[in-house]
Amino acid sequence: MTNSHLNPGSTVGILGGGQLGRMLSLAAARLGFNTHIYSPEPHCPAKSVSALATTAKYSDKKAIAEFARSVDIVTFEFENIPIDTAVTAAVETPLYPPIEALFAAQDRLTEKEFISDTAGVPVAPYHPVNNAFDAVRALKILGEKIVLKTRRLGYDGKGQSIVTNEDDAKSAYKFLGEVPCIAEQFIPFRREVSVIAARGLNGEVAAYPLIENEHRDHILHKSICPALGDGGDAQTHAIRILENLDYVGVIAVEFFELDGGKLIVNEIAPRVHNSGHWSMDAGCIDQFELHIRAITGWPLGGTNPPFKVEMINLIGDDVKQVPDLAKSPYTKIHLYGKSEIRPGRKMGHFNRLIF
Amino acid sequence: MTNSHLNPGSTVGILGGGQLGRMLSLAAARLGFNTHIYSPEPHCPAKSVSALATTAKYSDKKAIAEFARSVDIVTFEFENIPIDTAVTAAVETPLYPPIEALFAAQDRLTEKEFISDTAGVPVAPYHPVNNAFDAVRALKILGEKIVLKTRRLGYDGKGQSIVTNEDDAKSAYKFLGEVPCIAEQFIPFRREVSVIAARGLNGEVAAYPLIENEHRDHILHKSICPALGDGGDAQTHAIRILENLDYVGVIAVEFFELDGGKLIVNEIAPRVHNSGHWSMDAGCIDQFELHIRAITGWPLGGTNPPFKVEMINLIGDDVKQVPDLAKSPYTKIHLYGKSEIRPGRKMGHFNRLIF
Repeated sequence: MTNSHLNPGSTVGILGGGQLGRMLSLAAARLGFNTHIYSPEPHCPAKSVSALATTAKYSDKKAIAEFARSVDIVTFEFENIPIDTAVTAAVETPLYPPIEALFAAQDRLTEKEFISDTAGVPVAPYHPVNNAFDAVRALKILGEKIVLKTRRLGYDGKGQSIVTNEDDAKSAYKFLGEVPCIAEQFIPFRREVSVIAARGLNGEVAAYPLIENEHRDHILHKSICPALGDGGDAQTHAIRILENLDYVGVIAVEFFELDGGKLIVNEIAPRVHNSGHWSMDAGCIDQFELHIRAITGWPLGGTNPPFKVEMINLIGDDVKQVPDLAKSPYTKIHLYGKSEIRPGRKMGHFNRLIF
Repeated sequence: MTNSHLNPGSTVGILGGGQLGRMLSLAAARLGFNTHIYSPEPHCPAKSVSALATTAKYSDKKAIAEFARSVDIVTFEFENIPIDTAVTAAVETPLYPPIEALFAAQDRLTEKEFISDTAGVPVAPYHPVNNAFDAVRALKILGEKIVLKTRRLGYDGKGQSIVTNEDDAKSAYKFLGEVPCIAEQFIPFRREVSVIAARGLNGEVAAYPLIENEHRDHILHKSICPALGDGGDAQTHAIRILENLDYVGVIAVEFFELDGGKLIVNEIAPRVHNSGHWSMDAGCIDQFELHIRAITGWPLGGTNPPFKVEMINLIGDDVKQVPDLAKSPYTKIHLYGKSEIRPGRKMGHFNRLIF
């Protein structure tokens, strides 16, 4: 370990109480850490599995500072945490991943500029859009088909619209709320892949093999790791992004793989990621433990799965398959402790081990 | 599932707050259950990983009844829970494993009689000892070397003494506190093995392969599964014990394997067991989840590990090896959240995956 590693018995503070916070908390427990969950929700997936919890708004600076002072390190489970909140916490206690990564991930324009200009990793051609006229111009500059996206707060296909003509361009900008947007060239791709990688406090880096992802209705449905093919430069790209951000923790980098095999980054997530859930049952260190190891200064351990794993999300009513799934050997079920089933809600996932 | 299975979102009450309760709680969380930990200790390994906790004595019947009423099912992590306590809980809410199993496991004489006479499974020749005279007589009946053990509350080699002559017999009985004892013939064995098995609410049974165990200073040091050799009747014996107890949950059966290969039962534990910790990283359902599945009426799932795993306990200062262990790929570390290192204290364990 580094000289500055945290010992078991220390407390990891987690901003956010969803399933990612829950699985981070379970992983931290395996390493002997306590966790303290901060979330505005009194009952949420992460709070069920931790003895320490704070229920307060993210904008409550007094509560955030008090929370940060009560723990040994702070991390977060979602990238849309207000920057102010993160800064308030970081003043009191080390916070990882670094706030620079939040800046890059919260704004699609900053993100694209960072990835292409700073890290030198390919992205789709893009153009900033601040009014309807920009939207029309972007279409002219970028080609026949573009995707107009809000710069902030989009996820699971929300906050974006495909545009093929001038009228569409204007109405799409209006539909998206006339907020700052980015237009990206629509790139036909042969598949979506991702890389989950991590960087430790001492600069050690590790990356899992290439992951192939399948989305349904803009929500991740299935991930397989290792994916077929060597993934070209995917891992190198991910590590270049980590190093250019002076990053600490786990990052997810989503790529489009084009017909010739070229990879372009779609987006990055400065956190553990749904496309890494297969790692929980893959025989190597899983992404949640990898993140905890990285931010506490432990060695990262092994990220090379000795067998293949397929992860499938349980969205909404899918969770009703659980009684049947539970009969299959080598099918590992992970439920998030959400009481109410809603359409589109991620209720859990299962991993199928393939030997 | 059976018609009477518990749905995710239900609460599993656990009597006992040690590392077994902790790992049961983590496994229950994976299946979407809440847990409620009952223990006299305000801070203990299991309470760190659960939002719900009661701190009260096991003899506090009012607190036990209230606890039981607040949960959907009650289980326990140690077999020396007072019978009265278990009965008080079971009056309010279903409690598994059944109280009959606690009776059998709390008294070495009842245990031996049940195993040999009721279940028809071999044990070492034994003789009850209620006074010094009985101890001398046991030596005459059972042979040149016997082990004198207290009938109740022995563990990890505590509460037992080897006896080879009449004077020893008398002084051993005195040394053990002049309490009811049992004398067992000393059986030379070639190795210690165990089987972890489970029986569900609907009578479904499952057993892991044979486990080989190595003790140091009477404390489990290492377990390997699958052990070399087919284990003869070990699994059949374990299942016969489960069925004769009308058992629900996970049970551990420890055997001595004699030179010719014959197995005799050393003892049973009506709970998850240290010799089953390898299962946490073995690619199949682990013993903690198996127990939760069994008592909540879920299918038991797969108990056949696709690769070999070696488990090594971290006792006392062994835990200082963790920084080095964390560097090895395919070494999975499990720490119990105990703040104080003490000699002989189980601080954690690690599993080495062998492909």
